[in-house]
Order: sequence, then C-alpha cells, then structure tokens
Amino acid sequence: MSTAEQPPSIESAIPPHLLDPARRPKHRPGTYTPPYPSFSARFDQKVTAVVMAYLGVQARDPSDPRLVGELGALREALAREDGPVSWDRAAYTDAEGYYTVISIAYWDDPAAFREWNRAHGEPWIAPGHPTEGLGFFLELVLPSIERVETVFSAPERPEGVAGTAYGFSGTIEEHFYWGSARDRLPAAQRDPLWADGDSTLTETGPVRSVVLHRNACLIRSGQDITETGPTEREFYLAEVEPVLREGMDFLVAEGATIGCLDNRYMTVLDEADAPTDRTFGMSWWRELSALEEWAASHPSHLRIYGAGMRHLSGFGGDTRLRLYHEVTVPSGAEQRFVYAGCHDRTGVLKAVR
Amino acid sequence: MSTAEQPPSIESAIPPHLLDPARRPKHRPGTYTPPYPSFSARFDQKVTAVVMAYLGVQARDPSDPRLVGELGALREALAREDGPVSWDRAAYTDAEGYYTVISIAYWDDPAAFREWNRAHGEPWIAPGHPTEGLGFFLELVLPSIERVETVFSAPERPEGVAGTAYGFSGTIEEHFYWGSARDRLPAAQRDPLWADGDSTLTETGPVRSVVLHRNACLIRSGQDITETGPTEREFYLAEVEPVLREGMDFLVAEGATIGCLDNRYMTVLDEADAPTDRTFGMSWWRELSALEEWAASHPSHLRIYGAGMRHLSGFGGDTRLRLYHEVTVPSGAEQRFVYAGCHDRTGVLKAVR
Repeated sequence: MSTAEQPPSIESAIPPHLLDPARRPKHRPGTYTPPYPSFSARFDQKVTAVVMAYLGVQARDPSDPRLVGELGALREALAREDGPVSWDRAAYTDAEGYYTVISIAYWDDPAAFREWNRAHGEPWIAPGHPTEGLGFFLELVLPSIERVETVFSAPERPEGVAGTAYGFSGTIEEHFYWGSARDRLPAAQRDPLWADGDSTLTETGPVRSVVLHRNACLIRSGQDITETGPTEREFYLAEVEPVLREGMDFLVAEGATIGCLDNRYMTVLDEADAPTDRTFGMSWWRELSALEEWAASHPSHLRIYGAGMRHLSGFGGDTRLRLYHEVTVPSGAEQRFVYAGCHDRTGVLKAVR
Repeated sequence: MSTAEQPPSIESAIPPHLLDPARRPKHRPGTYTPPYPSFSARFDQKVTAVVMAYLGVQARDPSDPRLVGELGALREALAREDGPVSWDRAAYTDAEGYYTVISIAYWDDPAAFREWNRAHGEPWIAPGHPTEGLGFFLELVLPSIERVETVFSAPERPEGVAGTAYGFSGTIEEHFYWGSARDRLPAAQRDPLWADGDSTLTETGPVRSVVLHRNACLIRSGQDITETGPTEREFYLAEVEPVLREGMDFLVAEGATIGCLDNRYMTVLDEADAPTDRTFGMSWWRELSALEEWAASHPSHLRIYGAGMRHLSGFGGDTRLRLYHEVTVPSGAEQRFVYAGCHDRTGVLKAVR
C-alpha cells in the first residue's frame, strides 16, 4: 500500500498524556469517523495551565480621542519581550451602545503572566485609570490544561489559545456529534463539570470584581473568510453570516433565560486596529450543559448549524472558510473579572448583580 | 404553605434502589426541571429482569385464512393463567409487502416465561410450523432491569413493558434534553453501553436464529389518540402522523446507513384483532448512541420532534394525546431471534445476512 492509499490516521482530541483509560466517550474509541476531518491544538506536555487575559476598554463615544492612545499603549505592552506568547484584538458595540475593544492575550505559563500583569495588566484596571466615558476591564481565565479543548477545521493558522500551542493533532475522533465538546475535554473524562457554588461580586469604589461559581463555561467560536474566493465569500455573507448574527443577537437579548451569562459577537482587528475578515462569538455560560443544550436544541443555534453545514457541503473540498472554537471550563479559582468604571451590564457583571 | 402551593416533587427516573452515587447525568441531580412533566414505570424491587417476547407471524397474503386460526390459538395461549403479566398485539405491512402481526408478551420473571415458552412459545417457531406463505418468529429480549428505561407523558395507562410494573414514578428529572434516555438507564450510570462483539446467524433448515452483538438497542415508542377530541385528533392526523410516518419510512429505507437494524411502524390491535387509535414504532439499533444521534441530529427525527412539540404546545393542558417509550439495551446473552420460514429481510435477519 502506498502512502497515498493509507487511510487517514485518527486520534483522540485528548492528547495521549491526558487520556484516562476509564473515560467513556459517546463512541467506543477507534470506532467512529466524523464525516469531515477536524483537528485540536496540541500543547507541550510541560504546559499544565494556560492564561487567557481579556483586556477590554469600553467607550461611550467610539470616536473618543483617548481610545487611540489607550489602545496604542496596550499594544506596546503586549508586544514586549516579556509579553504574552500570542494575542489578538477584537471589537464590537455592546447592547448598551458602548464601543468595546478587547485585547486577548494568551500565555502557557501563569508565572510569566503574573510577572507581566504586575507591570502592565494591573494598571489597566487600576482605580485611577477609568475616566468619564471610558471603562476598563480584565476578564481573566487561568484554566488547567485539562479544562480546555479546541477544534479547528484545518490544521493551520492557530487562533485564540491555540496561538500558544506547538501545533495540531491529526484528524480527531470526537467531533461532529452533539456532545463531542465534552468528549474532547480532558477534565470531563471523570468529572461531569456541573456548576457549583455561588458567584461573588465585590465593589471598591469604581472597581467591581466578580468571581463566578465553579465550572462556568467560556466558548470562543470563530470564522475566517480571508481566503475565500468571491463566490464562497458572497455565499457566506448572504446565507451564513446573517443567521449567525441573529443567533448572537438572541443570546444577547434572551441568553439569560437559558444559562448564557454574556455573549459578544466580535470582529478581529488588524495591526492598525482596522476590521478584518475574521469574527468570533465569545460567551460565558452557567455550565457546559447549558451551552450543549443551546447548541443541540435551540432553534437559534440549529439555524446557524444548518447554514454552516450548507456552506461546507456546498463548497466541499473547495471550502476556504475556516472555523474553530475553544471551550474552557475553569474551576472557581481559575477565573476572575475586574471591571473599572464600566457600566452595569458589562460582561458577566449583568449576570451577578 | 398549603399543599396546593407546594412545588411538584421531582425524582430520578432511576429508582432509588438502582441509583449509583457515582453516576453523572447531564445535570447535577436536583437542579433541572423539564418544561413539562414525564413519568417512568416503577417495577417491584424484587424484579431483577423482564421478558419481552415478540411473537410474530407474517403472511404473504393478508387474507390468508390460516392467519385467523393461528392468531386465535396464540391469543388463547397468552390468556392462560400461566401466561404473561401483560401483552398486546400490533400489525403492519413490511417493506416486502408481508402483512405481519406481532403479539408482544411481557413477564417480570424469566422463570415463569420459560415455563410458558416450553409449552406455547417453542411450538410457534417449531420447524414444522411454517407452511407456504406464512412465516413465524420469536424475537426475545430478557434484559436485566438495569437495562430498561421507560418514559410516559401521563402516569397512567401503562403500555409495553410498563404493563408488568406496579405503577409510575413522580415527575422525573431526566427528560426533555438530548441524552436523557441514557441518563434514565440504570446500566448507563457506569457503562457507556458501546456495541461489542459480532452477531451470529445459525441456519437449521427453514429456521434461522440470530444473536446480536452485545449492547444492541431496542426502542418501542408509541402514541395514543384514543382520548383526543375532534380538533386535537384532526391536528394529530394532519400535522403529526404524516411526519412520523415519513420518519419511519426513512428508517425502513435507509436506516442501515445510520445504524438502524430494523424498524416497524405498527398499529395496536384490539381484542378482535381490529386496528385501534394506538400506534408505535419499534426499532433495533446497533447501539444506543446511534439511536441518540438519529434522535438529536437527523432531519427525519427532528421533524417528528418538531411536529410533536407543536402538538403539545398548541394543546397545552388540554392535550389528550399520550406518548411513551421504552428503551432496552440487552447484553449479548439477553436477546435472541428465531425466524421460522420467514423471508430474508424479516426483522434483524436483514442486518446480519
């Protein structure tokens, strides 16, 4: 058999050193092949935890001249030698009309983050920093590596936390079926990851801090049409994006009724802080099962899923649309949120007040 | 608080004596309330296994005069003092055009079944019994009680295996969400119930016997419109039944591609062997996860589910439609199938030949 004739190798999304022999995914390992390939980011074995620092600024007036200065200074801090392994920046306008830019920085070493944070992260959310019309926040997630899973439609162009990975897995087995995100999460091999305990809110002057209950769930789920040709691009923008936007709007308006604590539908910015062809939704959920139920059952997500499937099946092997997501289920000690001078409905603040 | 104001009690579908403290259902026990109540059959604690005997006859010519005699004799055998705890009879015409009547008998004691079977079940499928144009079969499932789960929309009028139960649970927690059937199955608390091993087919003259692999999965899923008023009945027959039939037809025609080994969409017969207003689908699946995936993902089932939801939400508290199902995942030793003089595509024969 020549190399070309060999069947594609298939592997677990969970890397070998984190595989639990007692796990029980939906399908017996080795017996299921998803209808199209997907890949997970692979982190060095020495990585035991990653850091996701969502450094945000909100402006009542998007043309506020101070915004450019704040974003420029933060860019410099993030580009430092002792800065994050990878980072990107994205923007959206929230439901209250505040233009919001979030710089998302990733480390594969919490100690390195703490060092940088003392000098550059803490001032961002210092009590003196916010001024009339601008608010600053840091949403910080430091999950153990067992509490993160990623999936990519192509084994290239890492986004999000995958920017700190060394590469990608082969074709993974836990994909396509409802429940596969849980089967990809190493921590879910033995733990049902139920929400546990209460969230806390602490107010100190203009600075409000939140620690969510244990096992809240964050998803960042993105799409990139940079490489699409005109036909595919037009199909995506006409048939997929509006349905995606409608689902994102549903989560903003009514997510609270189904366990969605916050949702942002964001556009990635380039090095000049101009919009790119890459977007993502990021949302916090009461627990993984609430996200799973929205995904598998709610009309607003089933429409997104249907539109995406029509796109993928229509373009088949010619598809240049790239999709990815990362799901994180931090313990209670692995997340905290600081909002300095932000309005009451910023981020997860609205869910705990 | 008066009695009327007390919140409805809610309990696990798994009876207390079979609850495993290590189980991990989708939702932490005590934290989820389905949007409408459902109930599980409750069996006496001394019941460790039940028997489901599907005694079938197929006729190339539905007006074959021998059919009446065969069915009358079997009715007498089933009505005997030493007969099953409960039984019913249903009919359909299979894809090959054979009119098929199955008498489904339930015991809560395998020893009692064996006694009756020696005298009345074995002759049904004896090599001399089949004659030109008629085929006889026994599809026998003897699951341990941990391998059966049931769900009913109303805690009354037991159907199927629930006829051997002493009554119903209170409102159950594991219901409505995808994956809830697995959470109701006591055996699934520790076992992923993956398909395992091979099926075997043995031929002895006109008698062919099948033993499926371990953890094949049987569902009987029924609907009863006996009590509906004219408006509800008309809605069901115009809006729900055709969609259900279409899904059943899909499983017959193409089920093999998604792990469905056999499907029958049957009408329950009354004591004079005339059709009633009660119908059910019964299907065998490669394993529980294949059934779960059809239910949660396949358009043919999502349409059935959507039509059912429109019915239930449209009639609300006035609904008289009754729904139920039972799911069974027998081990390899807990099922066997004997087909005497039957055509090649009868029951699970088509899946193993």
